[in-house]
Amino acid sequence: MRQAGRSLPEYHQVRDGLGMLETCERPELVTEITLQPVRRYGVDGAVLYSDIMVPLRAAGIGLDIKPGIGPVIDEPIRDRAGLDRLQPLDPSTVAHVAESVRLLVGELGDTPLIGFAGAPFTLASYLVEGGPSKDYARTKALMAGDPQLWHDLCDRLAGIAADFLAVQIDAGARIVQVFDSWAGSLSLADYTASVARHSARVLSRARDLGVPSIHFGVGTGELLPAMAEAGADVVGVDWRIPLAVASRRIGPGHAVQGNLDPALLSAPWPIIADRVREVIRSGAQATGHIFNLGHGVPPTADPDVLAKIVDLVHAEGPALRAEVAG
Amino acid sequence: MRQAGRSLPEYHQVRDGLGMLETCERPELVTEITLQPVRRYGVDGAVLYSDIMVPLRAAGIGLDIKPGIGPVIDEPIRDRAGLDRLQPLDPSTVAHVAESVRLLVGELGDTPLIGFAGAPFTLASYLVEGGPSKDYARTKALMAGDPQLWHDLCDRLAGIAADFLAVQIDAGARIVQVFDSWAGSLSLADYTASVARHSARVLSRARDLGVPSIHFGVGTGELLPAMAEAGADVVGVDWRIPLAVASRRIGPGHAVQGNLDPALLSAPWPIIADRVREVIRSGAQATGHIFNLGHGVPPTADPDVLAKIVDLVHAEGPALRAEVAG
Repeated sequence: MRQAGRSLPEYHQVRDGLGMLETCERPELVTEITLQPVRRYGVDGAVLYSDIMVPLRAAGIGLDIKPGIGPVIDEPIRDRAGLDRLQPLDPSTVAHVAESVRLLVGELGDTPLIGFAGAPFTLASYLVEGGPSKDYARTKALMAGDPQLWHDLCDRLAGIAADFLAVQIDAGARIVQVFDSWAGSLSLADYTASVARHSARVLSRARDLGVPSIHFGVGTGELLPAMAEAGADVVGVDWRIPLAVASRRIGPGHAVQGNLDPALLSAPWPIIADRVREVIRSGAQATGHIFNLGHGVPPTADPDVLAKIVDLVHAEGPALRAEVAG
Repeated sequence: MRQAGRSLPEYHQVRDGLGMLETCERPELVTEITLQPVRRYGVDGAVLYSDIMVPLRAAGIGLDIKPGIGPVIDEPIRDRAGLDRLQPLDPSTVAHVAESVRLLVGELGDTPLIGFAGAPFTLASYLVEGGPSKDYARTKALMAGDPQLWHDLCDRLAGIAADFLAVQIDAGARIVQVFDSWAGSLSLADYTASVARHSARVLSRARDLGVPSIHFGVGTGELLPAMAEAGADVVGVDWRIPLAVASRRIGPGHAVQGNLDPALLSAPWPIIADRVREVIRSGAQATGHIFNLGHGVPPTADPDVLAKIVDLVHAEGPALRAEVAG
């Protein structure tokens, strides 16, 4: 579960006063924070504690991650001079990430470490808007109005994201996830014409390096076939579509990941348990299924509820899947 | 175009220091503000200047609409005692709305006035969360965890929304729009089980009173057939799906409204013009089409661009539609 650690008291104890990006740069803290949800919940995979903005800062962009806001860019990129400030990733500038991965692989034993990177569209949206956005107006206007600059920007970002994945894979990450969190704001036509090829380049690096990849976004019901076609082994699905429906859309060559609605984590337990079972049954109709929430774990999530969900998936998952398989 | 006025300098001149809800309560200001985009753009319909929260305040809920935030509720409704604070709508408490509609109908001549109300789910989301939300966690937890309270709340809200529409229709509104702006955060299963029937009740009041209705939401690709089935004559479609695709989903008995991406309003004009033509061509494949943006007009929109869009739709729309019809 992505960001499963951020609702934990032991996480806040480690962070204690330290900024998020500073925390991400200290391998001993990254190792501890990444291990916390694995220890507490016994999940089947560990998600590296990092942020999609880490490689952009390493590639020359002044930015910070502000509590309660998200990434804030010192000087947004809106023209060619702005693009020139974004340099290719020098792997030595993210040596701390490689070090974190190595430390984690040593600690994790059989539990695989999941590395990740942002997809070019989502990264570009932060760089162009200057921070989080509701409508991505500047990003879309740039995409439509100056396609050459748009593609050059995404080309650079795809290189950075792919190199960032390579650093993690070389150091021992056994799966990678590519987050195109905000791609769901696009029509299929715009996604296909202006975004898909750049994401495909990032995903193909994982494939070349021999690790499976997960391609994730929110509100992507219309985009699922195109996101699968971009080259992912697993396609992330939010809570809006049953996994069985998503699987029919993306075809038999891809597994699915998801898709419990994180907003339901504060509902009474019997309701959550029913929904978890529904997700497992629906996922059993796909080629393969990684149980997860449909988006990140909210910071307000009750750790005990998350523990009960993991236990339920482990205890009942195999039988429920067998039942559906008949 | 919804909220087409809020980007106009003459609108900000009228508002000058006055709160939004206070402005909505003064018929002479509502009349002026509603007429401003009609005068400037020559659009084919006028959208009453009001807010979906107006009838809730009239029904006993302490709330304000804060600039840059949106509706903020003094005491969120999360239990039965909270629900008791929400009273049925006494039409005399929104007499100012009826007065505004009468004044406008007198001024508008042949141009129809479009009235509106919020749909129960979207209204409930504000009341339960206490304001705008990213994930609607409390709303969804209430819906799943206490269905009786949820349905009682929506039942009360459906009555208020229907009565609010009736006030506007009785005073002369010739079309009504029901805004379920945030319904797209729900899965189809949740929408069908917990929301659709309440929206249907609101829409059926418009039908009983003999005026056509538009049913609008954002990110509703999966919900379109259910939103049509809830009883609307016209279904609003955001920019994520071509109108022709939306029309196939909702079937031949309903027209569509939309769906230029408002985020594109700052793109260069030739790009916007191409997109406007695409929207018209796609809409020509539906049973009927009201050209509009896919969501509200952003406050930063350039009025000259909006004027050019309206002119383009009027100048080229009929020929483009005829071309598609063959």
